[in-house]
Amino acid sequence: MNKRMEKSNDRIKFIGGGVCAAKGFKAAGINSHIKANSQKNDMAIVYCDKICNAAALYTTNKVKGAPIVITKQHLSDGKAQAVIVNSGNANTCNANGIEIAEGACVIAAKALKINVDDVIVASTGVIGQEMSLEPFKKCIPILAENLSEKGNEDACEAIMTTDTRKKQFAVEAEIGGKTCHIGGMSKGSGMINPNMATMLCFITTDVNISSEMLYQALKQVNSITYNMVSVDGDTSTNDTLAILASGYAGNKEITEDCDDFNTFICALYGVMLNFARETARDGEGATKLIECAVKNAHSEETAKAAALSVINSPLLKAAISAADANWGRVMCALGYSDAEFDVNKVSVDFASRAGRIRVCENGAGHEFSEDEAFKILSEDEIEIIIDLNEGEDCAVAWGCDLTYDYVKINAEYRS
Amino acid sequence: MNKRMEKSNDRIKFIGGGVCAAKGFKAAGINSHIKANSQKNDMAIVYCDKICNAAALYTTNKVKGAPIVITKQHLSDGKAQAVIVNSGNANTCNANGIEIAEGACVIAAKALKINVDDVIVASTGVIGQEMSLEPFKKCIPILAENLSEKGNEDACEAIMTTDTRKKQFAVEAEIGGKTCHIGGMSKGSGMINPNMATMLCFITTDVNISSEMLYQALKQVNSITYNMVSVDGDTSTNDTLAILASGYAGNKEITEDCDDFNTFICALYGVMLNFARETARDGEGATKLIECAVKNAHSEETAKAAALSVINSPLLKAAISAADANWGRVMCALGYSDAEFDVNKVSVDFASRAGRIRVCENGAGHEFSEDEAFKILSEDEIEIIIDLNEGEDCAVAWGCDLTYDYVKINAEYRS
Repeated sequence: MNKRMEKSNDRIKFIGGGVCAAKGFKAAGINSHIKANSQKNDMAIVYCDKICNAAALYTTNKVKGAPIVITKQHLSDGKAQAVIVNSGNANTCNANGIEIAEGACVIAAKALKINVDDVIVASTGVIGQEMSLEPFKKCIPILAENLSEKGNEDACEAIMTTDTRKKQFAVEAEIGGKTCHIGGMSKGSGMINPNMATMLCFITTDVNISSEMLYQALKQVNSITYNMVSVDGDTSTNDTLAILASGYAGNKEITEDCDDFNTFICALYGVMLNFARETARDGEGATKLIECAVKNAHSEETAKAAALSVINSPLLKAAISAADANWGRVMCALGYSDAEFDVNKVSVDFASRAGRIRVCENGAGHEFSEDEAFKILSEDEIEIIIDLNEGEDCAVAWGCDLTYDYVKINAEYRS
Repeated sequence: MNKRMEKSNDRIKFIGGGVCAAKGFKAAGINSHIKANSQKNDMAIVYCDKICNAAALYTTNKVKGAPIVITKQHLSDGKAQAVIVNSGNANTCNANGIEIAEGACVIAAKALKINVDDVIVASTGVIGQEMSLEPFKKCIPILAENLSEKGNEDACEAIMTTDTRKKQFAVEAEIGGKTCHIGGMSKGSGMINPNMATMLCFITTDVNISSEMLYQALKQVNSITYNMVSVDGDTSTNDTLAILASGYAGNKEITEDCDDFNTFICALYGVMLNFARETARDGEGATKLIECAVKNAHSEETAKAAALSVINSPLLKAAISAADANWGRVMCALGYSDAEFDVNKVSVDFASRAGRIRVCENGAGHEFSEDEAFKILSEDEIEIIIDLNEGEDCAVAWGCDLTYDYVKINAEYRS
C-alpha cells in the first residue's frame, strides 16, 4: 500500500479551498449558540448542487451517537447531497437524540430543497446532554442562504471543539485525463484512538466514482492514516468520516480497481495523511507530533501493533514532552504490545530535523550523547524509528506528547 | 470467588509486621547508592531460616528484566530461602543484566550461607542502564548482618521508586487449628496495568502448603486483585509477585483444594486486596482512588473488561480529578471495551462517603444535582457503580485520577 502511495505522490498537487475545493460544493458556518458562552461557529452545512455518490466509516464504539444511526440510514443507498454538522453537543446518550438528529436533517432538507434521505448529520461535543432543535430551526435557513464556494473556512471553524487550529486540505490530480479535486475538513484532538481517531471528517471530490469504490478507497486509506493515530486511547462515540463525489470532473466513472482508482487512492491518501498527522499534532495539550515507524516486521499486523503501542504509552509520551531520551519505555511498550518479535534484534533511533541518533541496538542500550538526544527531542516533530530486523513489513503511527495541558483541558471539559 | 472471600473475611485479623509477620522471616534494608543522589534505602534482603516452598508470577511483557530470567531458573524446583531486591535500576535491556542478576544471587547466597538456587532476585527502576555489582558486594554482607524480625520497615522502603508511601500488610488466620500469618511488602505506582500491575510484591507465610498450591492461590487471588488495577495502561518489564512459605505454623500441609486451602486463599486475598487498592491509590500523581464495580454482567469476562476499560480512560480519570461528573465518558469507555452489553439497559452511579447519586439510567442521562455530584466526587475514594442489568456476574477494578503530577513525575523520571 505504502509503496503504491509513494510512487504516485508526484502526481498530486496541494491546493487551497478545503471542503469547497472540488467542483459543485459550497459550505457555510455559523454560531448557533448551542453552548451559551461559545464565541465561535458551531454549526455548518456542506452542500453539493447535485446528488452525489457517497460513503462513510463510523466509530467502532458500541455506544454510538444518534447522528450515526440516522446517517447510516440515509447513506444506505450510497447517495447524499448535504452534510449538517454541529459541535458543542454530541447528541449521544440522551433521551431525544434520534428525534434531534432526524429533525436536523428534515430542517436542512427543507431549506436546501433536497431529499431528507440525502442529508448526512453529525455532532461532536459533550455526551449525555439534552439537546433542542431550536438552534437548527433558527440557523439552518441562514446557513442555506449563505452557502458559498469560500464557505470552507467558516464551516471548518464550526466543527472544532478543543482543536486549536482548523484542519483542511485539498489536492488536485489528473484522473482519466481530467483535472480532479479532493478536499476536506476535519476535527478531533481528544478522545482519539485507533479504530477511527475520534474525529469528524468530511471529504468532497469531483471525481466520477461509484459509491462502492468510494467506500473501498475510504477503508483502505483510513487503515493507514486515521486508524494509525492515537492521542489518548479513548475511542469516541461519534467518529464519522464521510466522502461525497459529485462527478463533475467528467472522468469515466471509476467502478472497479484500476489505474484511475489507484490514482484516486493516492490523492485521497495525500489528503488523509495530512489530516492524520495534524490530528495527532493537535492532540489535546500536545506540544510535539510523534511519528513512530516500525520497519522490517514479519507482518503488517505486527508492525502496526508495535507502532500503536509505542505511540500510546503515557510514560513515553510524558518523557518526550520533557525531551528525555528514555528509550527503555519504547522497549517496554513494544514488549506489552501484541507484536511478535525477537527482543534481541531490536534497534531504536530517535530523530528530528535536529539529527538522528541510535539509542538501542540488539535490544540493549547503545551509547549516545545525552546533549544530542535532548537537542533532537526538543524539536516539535519527533520520529521514533524501530527496526525489528525480522521481515519486510512496515507501519507508521502518529501521536503526541502528554503534557499538563492534556489534564487541564480534560479535567473540566463540560464547563 | 468474591463470595467465597466475603464469607470468610471475618476469619482473618489484620496485624503489623509486613513481610516479617510470619514465623521464620527476617528482613533488612540499606541505601547502597545505586542512584548517586538517592537519600533512601534501595536494597533489601528478605530471609527465612529454612528453605521454603515458593511460587511466583511474572510480567507478561515480552521484554523481561534479567532478574526475572534468573528468578524463574531458581524457582524451578519450587524452593527459595531469600530475596535480594533493589530499586534505582531495573537491570533490564542492558548488556550485562544476566551477569548482574546472577552475581547478586551468588553474593547473597554466600553472605547468608544458603544455596544460590534458593535466592530470588528482583530489580525496579530505569530500564536500559548499565549496572555494577559493586553496590551488591559492598552492601549485601551488611544486610545479612542486620537481618531482623523488625526489618520489614527498612526493606519496604528499599523497594519504593515513585511510591509516596510504604505498602505493607499482614493478617493472622486459623488454618487447620493453627494460628498462621501471611504478610508482605509491595511497591508500584507508575507503569501499572493489568496482567500484573507493574510492581514488586513479596509475600511470606508460615502456613504449611505445597509449592503447587501456593502457585494456584497466587494465580487465583492475583486475577481479582493486582490484575484489576490500572494506573496508566503501561505494563512493566519487571513485575514480580513472589510468595515464600516456611511451614512453621505447623498445620497439616495443604496439598490440594480443601477447606484449609479456602481459608488460606481468603487470608491471602485480605493481604493482596489491600495491596491492589493501595497501589491504585498511590498511582503516580493520583489524588483519588477510583473503584469501578460492574454488576449484573452476563459473564465475568464482560464485567472485568468493562471495569478495566472505565478505570483506564484518561478522559474519565481527568474528569474525576476535577470532580466533574462527566458520566458520558463512562459510557464511552464501556462502549469501546470488549464487553458485550445492551447500551439501553445500563445505569451508572457515582458514590463516595459523601453520598451516592444516579447519573445515567437505561443508557441515557438521569437528572442529578451538580452540587451533590461535585461533593461526592471531591472525596478521595470514588466509586463508580455500573449495572449492566443483564446477568449475574460482577467485577471490581481499581485505578486513580489523572493529574498534572502524573505528567510531571514521568516527564523527567530518569534524571
